[in-house]
Amino acid sequence: MILFQNVTIIGVGLIGGSLAKALKAKGLAGTIAGTGRRRESLEEALRLGVIDRIGQGKAYGVEDADLVVLASPVGTFERIMREIAPHLKKGCIITDVGSVKGKLIAVVEGALPAGRHYVPAHPIAGREKSGVAEASENLFRDRRCILTPTERTDDRALETVRDMWSLTGAIVSVMDADLHDRVFAAVSHLPHVAAFAMMCAVAELNTGSEDYLAYSGAGFRDFTRIAASSPEMWKDICLMNRDNLIPMIDRYLFSLNRFKHEIIAGDEKRLEKHLQLSSDERRGME
Amino acid sequence: MILFQNVTIIGVGLIGGSLAKALKAKGLAGTIAGTGRRRESLEEALRLGVIDRIGQGKAYGVEDADLVVLASPVGTFERIMREIAPHLKKGCIITDVGSVKGKLIAVVEGALPAGRHYVPAHPIAGREKSGVAEASENLFRDRRCILTPTERTDDRALETVRDMWSLTGAIVSVMDADLHDRVFAAVSHLPHVAAFAMMCAVAELNTGSEDYLAYSGAGFRDFTRIAASSPEMWKDICLMNRDNLIPMIDRYLFSLNRFKHEIIAGDEKRLEKHLQLSSDERRGME
Repeated sequence: MILFQNVTIIGVGLIGGSLAKALKAKGLAGTIAGTGRRRESLEEALRLGVIDRIGQGKAYGVEDADLVVLASPVGTFERIMREIAPHLKKGCIITDVGSVKGKLIAVVEGALPAGRHYVPAHPIAGREKSGVAEASENLFRDRRCILTPTERTDDRALETVRDMWSLTGAIVSVMDADLHDRVFAAVSHLPHVAAFAMMCAVAELNTGSEDYLAYSGAGFRDFTRIAASSPEMWKDICLMNRDNLIPMIDRYLFSLNRFKHEIIAGDEKRLEKHLQLSSDERRGME
Repeated sequence: MILFQNVTIIGVGLIGGSLAKALKAKGLAGTIAGTGRRRESLEEALRLGVIDRIGQGKAYGVEDADLVVLASPVGTFERIMREIAPHLKKGCIITDVGSVKGKLIAVVEGALPAGRHYVPAHPIAGREKSGVAEASENLFRDRRCILTPTERTDDRALETVRDMWSLTGAIVSVMDADLHDRVFAAVSHLPHVAAFAMMCAVAELNTGSEDYLAYSGAGFRDFTRIAASSPEMWKDICLMNRDNLIPMIDRYLFSLNRFKHEIIAGDEKRLEKHLQLSSDERRGME
């Protein structure tokens, strides 16, 4: 079942490339054009058969697109929307895969011409690996995909995007954009910052001849896996969701300082109480 | 090849139980007695065939032991050594599996009668799971095991314990106890505190009807996996290695605060620089 005759994906990396592959595997798209800043990466996508052609020129080849997917780092959306807006055809659906929604929606809707429909989306399928070579048609299967429609969102466009994600195997839900940004500040953006900060702290130890990392066990590796994620992508997410992220970092700093002072004071009772809370909560997640 | 006729393991959990299973599988022990505080757990170990008998009485059945393995939380070693020291037979080897070495060595050596030999050891094979039901004879295979002998350590006892760990499949190395405690404060104890603090921070959000954790992806799950570890065990490790752990927590707080202030200031250049450092270091670990 073809949902979209012509699809243009802007940013053919892990997520954009996986969506292209899933659309092809399920026969949901006629042709898929890919575009982005790095020519080599687009040529790789073409060679791998992930996309059918490279979108050329100022308008990135969106002129005939029935669906445009913004899958580049969220900090690039404003510029891209400015560039493509005049070229979007009437009835075209624009969606995205950004990890931040509130401010991003303002940016995209602010640049959207009448008669073109934006459906904000966030598939929860990121990994520490990036790039089109890692793309998989099964990346979204049984993973959540959150849609955050606004008052302006067209109902039919929303249903079409919902169908698309459901057909890739994702579990689709609808959520308020502000709530989305608070939740993901807590369960995604904060842990990324914490993992990045951990790698920096250990890397900056300057231990001379001793390679501390050689002694790291599975715990450290699991803990820091997400620190290998794309710096550019995460710079954008941190800055765009800073209003929600900074209060979460403060909560985390509070929690860390509390452990620190319980350890300094040798306060076994309170220390064990907080370790127990943490352990119970984590075991409850399985 | 029998290395020890009679072995007593004090604390038959994940590590103690796995060592018992490995000793049996390789035929390295005549009989294995297990002991500890929780009767049910010892009876489970007996039922599972992990140990041959439960060490009884005040001396935990160490009287005939050729090898005694301290595998209980490190905070219990002082009391246990006081209780068993008078009953250790001449020539007996005492070893341990504690994640802290410096202060622990002082405790054990301080209580050790002449003619009994202590070999401090730390197999790097912990997991967030605990208990004898999780024990596996292969837990140590291809994992590091670090021995931290002191001036008092008997050379032959050291070689015997080294042989034992090598025969379980571990990669054995020798390291200075103080360096061990600095390295593991950085690559193990700090990440555990950071994961515990993360779970507390998110658990204490009090989000009312919204279950934030339902939205957590693979990143959050990997990041917090070690927060499910045993609270009692980690309380002891944090307190016993606090002299090395507190400076590492401070380095981590510094690194987190730096990210926080770069995000608040919108300092894209410095933010991306530190994200890049982190990402490069983590990718370099694979």
